[in-house]
Formats: sequence, structure tokens, C-alpha cells
Amino acid sequence: MSEPNDTPKDPDFERRVRASFAKQTIMETIGARLAHVGPGETEIVLEMSPGILQQHGFVHAGVVATIADSAAGYAGLSLMPPGAGVLTAEFKINLMAPAAGDRLIARGSVIKAGRTLTVAQAVVEAETGGTRRTIALLTATLMAMENREGVLD
Amino acid sequence: MSEPNDTPKDPDFERRVRASFAKQTIMETIGARLAHVGPGETEIVLEMSPGILQQHGFVHAGVVATIADSAAGYAGLSLMPPGAGVLTAEFKINLMAPAAGDRLIARGSVIKAGRTLTVAQAVVEAETGGTRRTIALLTATLMAMENREGVLD
Amino acid sequence: MSEPNDTPKDPDFERRVRASFAKQTIMETIGARLAHVGPGETEIVLEMSPGILQQHGFVHAGVVATIADSAAGYAGLSLMPPGAGVLTAEFKINLMAPAAGDRLIARGSVIKAGRTLTVAQAVVEAETGGTRRTIALLTATLMAMENREGVLD
Amino acid sequence: MSEPNDTPKDPDFERRVRASFAKQTIMETIGARLAHVGPGETEIVLEMSPGILQQHGFVHAGVVATIADSAAGYAGLSLMPPGAGVLTAEFKINLMAPAAGDRLIARGSVIKAGRTLTVAQAVVEAETGGTRRTIALLTATLMAMENREGVLD
Repeated sequence: MSEPNDTPKDPDFERRVRASFAKQTIMETIGARLAHVGPGETEIVLEMSPGILQQHGFVHAGVVATIADSAAGYAGLSLMPPGAGVLTAEFKINLMAPAAGDRLIARGSVIKAGRTLTVAQAVVEAETGGTRRTIALLTATLMAMENREGVLD
Repeated sequence: MSEPNDTPKDPDFERRVRASFAKQTIMETIGARLAHVGPGETEIVLEMSPGILQQHGFVHAGVVATIADSAAGYAGLSLMPPGAGVLTAEFKINLMAPAAGDRLIARGSVIKAGRTLTVAQAVVEAETGGTRRTIALLTATLMAMENREGVLD
Repeated sequence: MSEPNDTPKDPDFERRVRASFAKQTIMETIGARLAHVGPGETEIVLEMSPGILQQHGFVHAGVVATIADSAAGYAGLSLMPPGAGVLTAEFKINLMAPAAGDRLIARGSVIKAGRTLTVAQAVVEAETGGTRRTIALLTATLMAMENREGVLD
Repeated sequence: MSEPNDTPKDPDFERRVRASFAKQTIMETIGARLAHVGPGETEIVLEMSPGILQQHGFVHAGVVATIADSAAGYAGLSLMPPGAGVLTAEFKINLMAPAAGDRLIARGSVIKAGRTLTVAQAVVEAETGGTRRTIALLTATLMAMENREGVLD
């Protein structure tokens, strides 16, 4: 892709993203952690566990989408000014291979950072015995909310 | 929409769908239940609880997607022949309002049932004090897998 | 779906939508016309012709998307206040059957009309010898632009 | 992204893709040409012209989608065996900036080549006076059809 405006408007972006992630109670419920935050990029790791599966024993597509959406969303938030909150307006995810392995890694990145709308994506890989393969690709439209009560970071 | 082929190829479709849903461990983890199964249609109910939230206190978009994807997927499976398994190839979800309330209700329906690919959708409503409003719309492409080891129902 | 806010903020919405459609030069190029405009709803008809096809002789998916996007977009514009312009932020289209027949009919409708973002959809049917079948379903996120030079209606 | 299987199963893939593109009558109608074909990748160029616009004078989103869909689709076809035909099951496109400039360039690439389903994407750039910027991102699910009458290449 080309030229994402990847200059954070908030030098304190990492602390802000990590504090927001810590409030996402679903992440502890499914066993996901925020492994990396950079300007316009994030990495979320989900360890395999028995309570996150669909009927064939793979990680449920919605759980894959949960870490991918947060990876994309926080990549977006990392470039937003202090005081803004981020909401996902929509996302689409292609599930290319069964979500099986030791862990899943979702890497989020910003495609286009706009004042109101930001487009971000996340690539999800499954790691098994040290080798990785791509299992899903998500693209999302994020909305920056300013001065909206209850919607911060 | 028009003329979905909503004649189940398996008279035992409800039992089959319910047995498959019961294997989705994520549903117990997030507190979702399968409230209704009909030919080409389903309803999944998710009670509000503290462990399924994003940073602003709304249900996480990925959790909304989890019940919407299963609602659409099982609507699709209800019309598939015995011996087939269903996998989601992709879905897109528009999140139209914050996912807040007493509970969420995802209603899945089949738009077009094909031999290999089925298109299904799910509408998600939030119920608060007896009133409902639409909060999300998902469309999915489902793939029927036949004779694939480990992929049944 | 439920409760779209389908009260036009502009009593002159039909004239405004028709005038905007008339400026879409692509519509004359492909042979599409705006058959109906109502509050939050539209219908665009595309006659079959030799210059709009893909390699198998069906109408190209991008042409199907062109009329579906405009049908959804103008359904959205019909509910926006005077002075606003509409842009498509994103759309997704499921192509469920080959686009063949005498003509295609795209019916647009609003799912959720918001101040900044509107979610709309379009169903595309193919008509052959008087019978119709659904061939595509589009969902779109529309953005209302106010006071943006060059972006009106 | 990782490891697309980018080994063509047909050494004659370029000729096959070019012959199929030449049958897409819509491409001549809108003024698009196939500039490059490689294994799992394509480039389509669309010159600006007065008959492809929407109401604000930008290229219509559906026209952007037309070249992006074909760029993604032919990237996919380039990796398919002889005798297969390619159909788009669905695509989603994010429109990130107005489609204005001297010309648009859509570059298609394969994300995951499967036996039945292939996931491909296309990035669309607008070129103005020698500088380029990304205006759209499309992801598509392609279906390989074998032995289907009328559906070849």
C-alpha cells in the first residue's frame, strides 16, 4: 500500500492504546494479549484454549474477527489525536484456512488515516510448532469520535 | 429478498443444528444460546455480561460478529444435506449503533442456498426494557464441505 | 429490518436525487435509468446491451455494482438535508447468480440513516421474460458531506 | 501477506488471461486496458474520460470497482489450471479518496489460491501529473468453475 499518514498526533499513543485495550474485558475472557503497539500498527496474540472454539474444533470465526478487529482498531487509534475515541463502523473478514494451531497472531495496520474515517486492515496468522500461515484478512472502516460522552480512546 | 430455496434436505435439520451449536464452546464462554431453529432461519440470544465488552462498555464488535456469524451459518446448515459441514468463507458486518442493552438477538436467514456456496445474513438487535433496535447487519458466504475429515455439520 | 428513519429532511428530495443522477455520466454510458425515487428507496433499471459484459457474456460484476451502489447511495441521499452531498465510503456485494436476462433492476433502501454515516443496501434482480430472480445483494456505508466544495447531492 | 501459491498451473497463463480480458466488452466501453499480467498479479489502467463519472465529477465507485474486480479476478485466473473459469462470488471495496486524476491504476494480487475458492485483492491508485495516491482497496472471493458450460477462463 502507499503512504499511510503514520505520524502519531499523540506522542503518548502507546500508553493510551494499552490502557484502552486493558478495558476490553473480552480479551481476558478469550485469552488475548496486546503484544506490540507502534505508530499505525499493532499485534495481538491469542493462545489456543478450549473455550473459544466452533463445532469442528477450530477457533470460531467470530473470535478470529475479535482479535483482528481490535488489532485494526488500535492501529487506527494510535494515529488519532488525544481526546478521540475509536468505533468500528464495519469490517469484512475473509477466512482462508481453518484457525488451528498453538496460537493466532493478528497484525493490524493503517491503510488510510482520515479525520473522520480511517481504513485499517489486519492479517491473522496461525502459528504451529514455530511455522506460520495466513488464515484471515480483515479490512475495517473506523470512525473517530470526538467529544462523544463515554467514547474515549 | 426473493425465493430462498428453504426446503430442508434433511428432515432432522433442527436436531443436527442444535447438536452442532452445542459443540461451539465459545457460545457458553460468552453466554449465548440458540433460541430458535427453522428451515433457513435461526435466532441466537446473548445476555449482557461483564466479560464480553470493549473499552467503552459496549459489547465488542467481534462478539456481535460471533453470534451473527453463527446465526447466519446455522441458517445455512439447516438447508444442507446430511453429511455436509458448513464453514464461513467470509463475512461483512455493519455496526450501526452501540451494542448496549439487556441482551442481543441475532436472527439469521438464508438469502441464496447453493450447492457449494450459500449466502446468508443476520440482523442483530439490542433489547432494552422490552424495546428493540437494530444494531448490526451481517452478510456471509458459507461453504458446504462434503466428505472433508473433521468438518461435519 | 427495523425502523429506518425514513422521513425526508428535504421535501424536494425527489427532484434533488433525479438531478444528481442525471449528472452521473456512467449511467448513460451503460444504459441505466432511475425508475423510482421514494423516501429512503430507489429503483434503477439497466437494459441488457453488448457493451457491458464480462468474458462469459454476463453483465460484469462491476456494472452490477455500479447500479447497486447508486441505488443504495440515492436511497441514502433522499433522506439527507439540503446542502449535503453523499459519498460511498465502502460497499460489499455478494454475486449470487450470473447477471443474465433482459434487464437488471436494483432496488436501494436505507437500513440506518445517521447524521454522518448511513447504511443502505441494494438488491439486484435479473428479469427474463417477465420472471425475476435475485442475483446480487449490496450493503454500503455512505458518508454525508456538508460544506465540502464540489460535493453536493 | 504470506506465501501465496504463485506457481501458475498453466504455462500459457498470460495468453489465456489476455484473451479473456479482450472478451470483457465493458473494458473498451469505459476505456480500460490490461497493462500487465504476471503469475498471481495483474495491472489494469483506466484513462480519465467524460463518460465514466458520478455526480461530483469523480470516477464512479462502480467503475473503480469494475477495474479492481477484474484486476483481482485475473490475478486469480492466472494461477488456475487450463479449463477452469473464474467467477467473483463477492467483493468489498473501501473507497478512501475521490477517484480523480489523469488515470487510475488497479493492481491485483492473489492472497490465497485454493482449489475452489481464491482470495485476491486489488489496490487502486490515482495518478495525477506523475504522482500517485491510493484511492481504493478491494478484497474478493473468486470461485474456480470447472466443466461448467459457458464458463471458461
